[in-house]
Amino acid sequence: MSTPAPKEFLDYVDAHSDDFVNRLGEAVSIKSVSGDPDRRPNVVEMGDWLEKQLKMYGVETKKVDLNFIVPSDQMLPPIILGKIGNDVSKKTLLVYGHYDVQPANQSDGWDTDPFVLTTMPDDRLVGRGSSDDKGPVLGWINVLEAHYQSNLELPVNLQFCFEGMEESGSTGFNEFLSSEDANNWFQGVSNVCISDNTWLTPRKPAVTYGLRGIIYYAVKVSGPVKDLHSGEFGGMVYEPLGDLIHLLGTLTSGDGTILVPGVNDTVRALADDEKVLYEEMDFTTGDVTDATGDTLVTTDKVQLLMKRMRYPSLSLHGIEGALDSNEPKTVIPHEVTGRFSIRLVPDQNPGDIDQLIQSHLKEEFAKLKTKSVLCITAVGDGFPWLGDITHSSFQAAKRATQDVYGLAPDFTREGGSIPVTLSFADKLGVDVLLLPMGRSDDGAHSTNEKLDKSNFINGTKLLGTYLYELK
Amino acid sequence: MSTPAPKEFLDYVDAHSDDFVNRLGEAVSIKSVSGDPDRRPNVVEMGDWLEKQLKMYGVETKKVDLNFIVPSDQMLPPIILGKIGNDVSKKTLLVYGHYDVQPANQSDGWDTDPFVLTTMPDDRLVGRGSSDDKGPVLGWINVLEAHYQSNLELPVNLQFCFEGMEESGSTGFNEFLSSEDANNWFQGVSNVCISDNTWLTPRKPAVTYGLRGIIYYAVKVSGPVKDLHSGEFGGMVYEPLGDLIHLLGTLTSGDGTILVPGVNDTVRALADDEKVLYEEMDFTTGDVTDATGDTLVTTDKVQLLMKRMRYPSLSLHGIEGALDSNEPKTVIPHEVTGRFSIRLVPDQNPGDIDQLIQSHLKEEFAKLKTKSVLCITAVGDGFPWLGDITHSSFQAAKRATQDVYGLAPDFTREGGSIPVTLSFADKLGVDVLLLPMGRSDDGAHSTNEKLDKSNFINGTKLLGTYLYELK
Repeated sequence: MSTPAPKEFLDYVDAHSDDFVNRLGEAVSIKSVSGDPDRRPNVVEMGDWLEKQLKMYGVETKKVDLNFIVPSDQMLPPIILGKIGNDVSKKTLLVYGHYDVQPANQSDGWDTDPFVLTTMPDDRLVGRGSSDDKGPVLGWINVLEAHYQSNLELPVNLQFCFEGMEESGSTGFNEFLSSEDANNWFQGVSNVCISDNTWLTPRKPAVTYGLRGIIYYAVKVSGPVKDLHSGEFGGMVYEPLGDLIHLLGTLTSGDGTILVPGVNDTVRALADDEKVLYEEMDFTTGDVTDATGDTLVTTDKVQLLMKRMRYPSLSLHGIEGALDSNEPKTVIPHEVTGRFSIRLVPDQNPGDIDQLIQSHLKEEFAKLKTKSVLCITAVGDGFPWLGDITHSSFQAAKRATQDVYGLAPDFTREGGSIPVTLSFADKLGVDVLLLPMGRSDDGAHSTNEKLDKSNFINGTKLLGTYLYELK
Repeated sequence: MSTPAPKEFLDYVDAHSDDFVNRLGEAVSIKSVSGDPDRRPNVVEMGDWLEKQLKMYGVETKKVDLNFIVPSDQMLPPIILGKIGNDVSKKTLLVYGHYDVQPANQSDGWDTDPFVLTTMPDDRLVGRGSSDDKGPVLGWINVLEAHYQSNLELPVNLQFCFEGMEESGSTGFNEFLSSEDANNWFQGVSNVCISDNTWLTPRKPAVTYGLRGIIYYAVKVSGPVKDLHSGEFGGMVYEPLGDLIHLLGTLTSGDGTILVPGVNDTVRALADDEKVLYEEMDFTTGDVTDATGDTLVTTDKVQLLMKRMRYPSLSLHGIEGALDSNEPKTVIPHEVTGRFSIRLVPDQNPGDIDQLIQSHLKEEFAKLKTKSVLCITAVGDGFPWLGDITHSSFQAAKRATQDVYGLAPDFTREGGSIPVTLSFADKLGVDVLLLPMGRSDDGAHSTNEKLDKSNFINGTKLLGTYLYELK
């Protein structure tokens, strides 16, 4: 049953859209680049600014100093926590966002100063962090302001968790989530909403219910004591780079099919009602060919989307320790490391897949009968995540999208990972929902990052409406 | 019939061995590093020094200014030419050497100042250029001095060609050799002797009669418009690095056997009397395991030597354009270039082998049915070279070795290439002989480069004696 947001809320948002844009501009002007140690004070400044906004609209806040949790030689910006409402008869929604941004220099190819939010004639709001993730974070502040100023009661209890190190590996975040403090603070949370990804296309809103997992490998093959001259030694020795090439060649076929025995067997079968989701998605190959050119393995929309979202993939990233320049050096590298990763999907788990991959690599390496030595390291991994779109939180997001945009959203999965999603799902054991604000062409980590003004304003309405549909 | 050098020559060399070492020290102290543009004036200084030495012992000299032949933005040191004797009843031997050296800094790991020739307690003369190639060049100066001071007539006419850019790709050298000036200067040359390689081992003198050729390849595979994120695009696109890995994997088997159809068929069959040469060589696997460790494809001495000297080999050198660091980045590189080279032997020629390799690569690439695009470039090539050891020049070198060292030399081939050898063989159409002075462990391009004093002194005797045996 649909319970749209009250007209006062929606009217307030429309009436204050320019103020909201100005506030986003204020946020963008704070250069909170977590990846640059010299900018850490700006990240801290951004956290302070954000805490002030929360307090202004009645939110109780708390700063978590990560420097006490994970001692580091570099200052860590705090996690900003917030709480408003403690009505036990209401649901309690935890909102996650991050207030740090990717690096940006105008000289990288920006048309405007990346830290001056610029409204373009087509209403694009251009600036670093506009879409990732200051826009969505400020969407929540807009919702708070609209309710506060209109004397509207929030339909759910709200909690906030705003991180300042997301773009730099979320240092300390999992340690914090595992702490007693977090456990106490997050008591009573019934749902989590993260707005930190985008629609599948520039055209149609989306609700995201899945992420692929990953295992990242470093495969080292060692041979001679030192690099050798191929004139002197070519033909006399087993060459590690040749061994590695042969080994990596056994992982996939030409079209990318994973050849490691057992890996494809662990993929959950396609359900009848699942395929409909892909068919309904607003997507054409033209949405990606700017990046891919004519290199797609299929032009079938459904097949293509499933390959990104619900099937595993294995990509080679590179080789370290070999000649990597265009000099015609005749070296036989003595030790080389291949890097590849496999994206995991339900019902795969990193432990089992790692066993299959390691066994396969060892078996294939033995077949080479080389004297080189193999060392396989799983550098990192993460589980895939899949929400249940029949659950109330997803259905509420669907209704909210219909309320605001007049159409049902695409239910999408991301091919990559947003680790914090899994952290919340694991630690809190509640439904997590990804509710994107921006479009697929926002260019989150790129030059000329933008958020369309309509996405900022309608996105604010969407986040607010979601609270009513969820309640 | 043996015609050893006169006793006066040999006695002079013995009596002046310390002076010869001092002169080598003087040469080593001139930092003639051609690879460092800032050191070019030192290379020129070294050329002047060398010309002065030649003149001192009656040699007519000429400086060839390469800057007129191959205009460059960097000063090119001259080629120093020399001529002594014009008796038409005598043979005319052209001696090649180079007076530039590899870079060297004590901080690279030298135990002593690389530009101060240091005599170690075990009589190693340590310094940059001691073995490559100032020692051999000064060996010839010693021969000249001994004859000049002892009033001995040289048994052959001598010509000299000393280059100052050998360690930097011999810029301008082939252009000079093709010039009218060179044609005039080298009139009447009947033999060429190059002393710019080493014995096969530290123990036994060698005469070198063969070099492998080479074709160096850059194989570019291009796909997407830009690098892609493997989370977003993994599974959707043909990946150039996967294609390249598969392609390179078809070139050799695990033990290095070349799999390109036709390539092995073009190798000249092993002659019965040829195998004996390998059997007689003073070599054990222990001579290379400092560098190779336990990675040799066979422990059979003859097989191993033939793999280096008389069979082709194919080595992968590296991949450019892919991730080459240890960062766990999940990139799908959009364009990658594999580099490999094949060493050629008689009767292979670069043109035919290139056709076989290009056809093979294209055929295998087609089998991948990828949408990536392949571009194969043969970056450079060189023919293999094989002298005839039954010819008088080689037999003279054998007798000279027996005269000086009391034993027959190993007749060796080098696995690499010394391009100037072929240049002379091609342009002058006469027998070229490689007569090494140093030992296999001299470390020509490495730290602590050395020439054993006994090799310098006996090597001087060998070069001089060769003239008598050749006459």
